[in-house]
Amino acid sequence: MKNLLVASTSTIHGSGYLEYLTETLEALFSETDDILFIPFARPGGISHDAYTQRATEAFKKIGKNITGLHTYKDPVAAIQQAQGIFTGGGNTFVLVSELLKRNAMQPLREVLLNGTPYLGTSAGSNICGITMQNTNDMPIVYPSSFKTTGVVPFNINAHYLDPDLSSTHMGETRETRIKEFHTQQTIPVVGLREGSWIRVRGEEMLLKGAHTARIFLQGKPPFEIASETDLASAL
Amino acid sequence: MKNLLVASTSTIHGSGYLEYLTETLEALFSETDDILFIPFARPGGISHDAYTQRATEAFKKIGKNITGLHTYKDPVAAIQQAQGIFTGGGNTFVLVSELLKRNAMQPLREVLLNGTPYLGTSAGSNICGITMQNTNDMPIVYPSSFKTTGVVPFNINAHYLDPDLSSTHMGETRETRIKEFHTQQTIPVVGLREGSWIRVRGEEMLLKGAHTARIFLQGKPPFEIASETDLASAL
Repeated sequence: MKNLLVASTSTIHGSGYLEYLTETLEALFSETDDILFIPFARPGGISHDAYTQRATEAFKKIGKNITGLHTYKDPVAAIQQAQGIFTGGGNTFVLVSELLKRNAMQPLREVLLNGTPYLGTSAGSNICGITMQNTNDMPIVYPSSFKTTGVVPFNINAHYLDPDLSSTHMGETRETRIKEFHTQQTIPVVGLREGSWIRVRGEEMLLKGAHTARIFLQGKPPFEIASETDLASAL
Repeated sequence: MKNLLVASTSTIHGSGYLEYLTETLEALFSETDDILFIPFARPGGISHDAYTQRATEAFKKIGKNITGLHTYKDPVAAIQQAQGIFTGGGNTFVLVSELLKRNAMQPLREVLLNGTPYLGTSAGSNICGITMQNTNDMPIVYPSSFKTTGVVPFNINAHYLDPDLSSTHMGETRETRIKEFHTQQTIPVVGLREGSWIRVRGEEMLLKGAHTARIFLQGKPPFEIASETDLASAL
């Protein structure tokens, strides 16, 4: 039975790393004290070790031990044996590229379908979708595919932002970018605002947090769903 | 001798399509009345015909005829025979993917190196760089490569935006994204603000327009260069 927490962001404004999720994480990881951390997204280009240290400090507060996937000789075995997994944010192209190089995307999919508790934030949430094609990140490396785990039946747009009506900037809004996606692809997209997450248990996929989420379906006007809505019925 | 106009945007706030560039475009295309338009980036997903129509209307004001590349049976020959070329903005992944599918990237490079006058805006400027890896666009299709024409010896970040110091949003700033790029790649990046363009004539590459541009070199702090600076000496 799937047991996932798919969060828009690790950090909300004015609060520490993962702080707003503390209670939820205690429940998600209640069955294990040992969590495998996937540091490949390297936010700001920090090293795997430094990123793992950041996760270690955050999880120490709820009594959990963190080990970085980069420290294992056999990363596939590490994923298969993990009692809990956390993939942090950063650059989704780098994250996907590194997972694919290690042939680790499919094993990750399998353990998540089989019930390993999983936390994803930002890029770590993008890889829960069918493809990474709604990332906001820069294509700083060329991954061998855009396909991701597909453990949820849609794509994620993390850090979703409403159009700034006072802006004089001529770059595309987030909504325009997702509409362009739907001229090319049929996959539903969930625009997940910072402070929102999706709690997946089995087939249930509840929107959580203070905000509504914006749903984009090909050929339909986008719409909002309220917190506590089950995405399984909304799509 | 190269003869390029590499613009951050087609449109600045409060002004019509290409309006701020009118005088410059008359000079760029002074030798020809016929311009080949590459509509593949499809902003907002509009059709090739509709996009070509938009370009046609803008160029009518300076007495130029526009033909869309999508109307040619042999796009490579069309590029080779063109007296002037304009590539409009939209989604860089779609643009690059469509050019590569038609084996048109290398022929485009060759004619630009040989002096065909060229206007690029936004995505159309990204493809003047060595790779498209500093685009802001969403990866809505998977191109067979990120490599572009390399007619300038750097990459472009179009619609460059300074960090918004009042923002509570936790997504990466543009500067952070480009710094992440330099943990993976060595190519210099020019952050080109809306209203700026680069006028390339032979080996000279002058920054034009009212703004400074932000230069990112691997391992060095980013810095600003003034309008009228030759990028050949600044990099």
